[in-house]
Amino acid sequence: MRGALRLVRFRGAAGGGPRLGLEEAPGGDLVDLNAAEPALPLSMREFLELGPRGLELAQRALESGQHRVARGATRLLAPVGDPEKLICVGLNYRDHCEEQGARVPKEPIIFSKFPSAITGPFDDIVLPQDSTEVDWEVELAAVIGKRGRHIEESAALEHVVGFTVANDVSARDWQLRNGRQWLLGKTFDTFCPLGPALVTREAVKDPHNLWIRCSINGRPMQDSSTHHLVFGVPALIAWVSRFVTLVPGDILLTGTPAGVGFFRKPPVFLKPGDEVQCEIEELGTICNRVV
Amino acid sequence: MRGALRLVRFRGAAGGGPRLGLEEAPGGDLVDLNAAEPALPLSMREFLELGPRGLELAQRALESGQHRVARGATRLLAPVGDPEKLICVGLNYRDHCEEQGARVPKEPIIFSKFPSAITGPFDDIVLPQDSTEVDWEVELAAVIGKRGRHIEESAALEHVVGFTVANDVSARDWQLRNGRQWLLGKTFDTFCPLGPALVTREAVKDPHNLWIRCSINGRPMQDSSTHHLVFGVPALIAWVSRFVTLVPGDILLTGTPAGVGFFRKPPVFLKPGDEVQCEIEELGTICNRVV
Repeated sequence: MRGALRLVRFRGAAGGGPRLGLEEAPGGDLVDLNAAEPALPLSMREFLELGPRGLELAQRALESGQHRVARGATRLLAPVGDPEKLICVGLNYRDHCEEQGARVPKEPIIFSKFPSAITGPFDDIVLPQDSTEVDWEVELAAVIGKRGRHIEESAALEHVVGFTVANDVSARDWQLRNGRQWLLGKTFDTFCPLGPALVTREAVKDPHNLWIRCSINGRPMQDSSTHHLVFGVPALIAWVSRFVTLVPGDILLTGTPAGVGFFRKPPVFLKPGDEVQCEIEELGTICNRVV
Repeated sequence: MRGALRLVRFRGAAGGGPRLGLEEAPGGDLVDLNAAEPALPLSMREFLELGPRGLELAQRALESGQHRVARGATRLLAPVGDPEKLICVGLNYRDHCEEQGARVPKEPIIFSKFPSAITGPFDDIVLPQDSTEVDWEVELAAVIGKRGRHIEESAALEHVVGFTVANDVSARDWQLRNGRQWLLGKTFDTFCPLGPALVTREAVKDPHNLWIRCSINGRPMQDSSTHHLVFGVPALIAWVSRFVTLVPGDILLTGTPAGVGFFRKPPVFLKPGDEVQCEIEELGTICNRVV
């Protein structure tokens, strides 16, 4: 289908800086987009600023069958590394509200991480010395492809270039300190694994009907569907754009379903050596070791 | 004094994109840094990434007396327009804690604005339709010049390239909604006027002994000294870098003194036509009309 792309950022075997690429198929070999189209920028954010023209060039590179790179010779990076905004939503699955005895919000609850929290889809999550309650949260992330403010809900999906998988790693102890502002507990370095690919909207049948799962060391912890989102992607985009201008590359984490560690009896937190796997239907899987 | 610079971003009379410059004196004519040193980047963040080498080139440009631009032929922009992080601190002046009956915090309270909130030192503050309680907060802003994590308080000032004046414009109604997460009320577009110049550390005698003032339509509203900061700049940098890696261009707003509108009896909020002037000793004055 035209425009159905799996955009990635990667480093080659020879090292060098991050490059843009395309997955030929989920988990398959890559096409080196910067080799195929040398005029394209190296930054995904700048690539997305090109709008449809950039996507057409990417489509052409994919169809050419040239500039292929064996997957094993690459290291995948987060598909967007330098967004202007990393926007997060709290309490946005009914079952996650229930597990903590919280009312389902009448308005989206918006918070943020700093972009410095972003790490690759297979990179390590670094446990900070300063926290003993680090938790997982698998989330559907929408990536903005078109600038806008005061976006109507009916037009909101036009502003989304695609989707990816995120882990909104959270230090619960810090969420309750810091004047109850969640930012610090959410924004330690490496607290936002992202990837493996930015899957364009055209490649996703229905973003509100995807199963979404997280497992720790192979043990299922979260298992839900984006069907259970309280506020869907269009409603969230309309809401956030009442406050701020959304620009290409902005990332919107849409909240996590039930099954986080903090509300288990007894609570479970991440420890060194754990392997955290987050997976969303049609988008792919990220897997991060805790160190 | 070597390294004592007033770095600015500006647009020329002929339009065109933002350029880097230097103020010859506070409020004086500019030196076009990009004309003087064409190899320098156009972005202040990228310029700061060059470290001491960039500052030396700027010093040389200033001393050359060449590439001068009349102040009246320019429009000043925020000295940094695209930071990775815009970090804010709550309740960081004793008198501001007292005016709201809040205890002086034992740890800094950190929140954030999105970089999209940044606007120029003489640009308009746009009142959102969605708020009726928009308030002012003059603040000393420190700008990071050197990357670091887990920075010791004793070495923290080495990571600060300089200082500027900020207005942490705040929609009080929204600070109390949104699950009491302050982000939305703080981050409407234009809610962070910044400038007029990034005054390098070497040009500031003592950042913790500067008077700091805000007036509305010429009427004094805030009048204090950075001497009354609860946590000074080194303590804040040490604290924040426990959580995140600080990088060149990051902006740290250090909190506001007493005298905001919300805690006046009766409360006072900004209305269209108001002129908000924020001034800090040695750094300069920003003045923004409310529309």
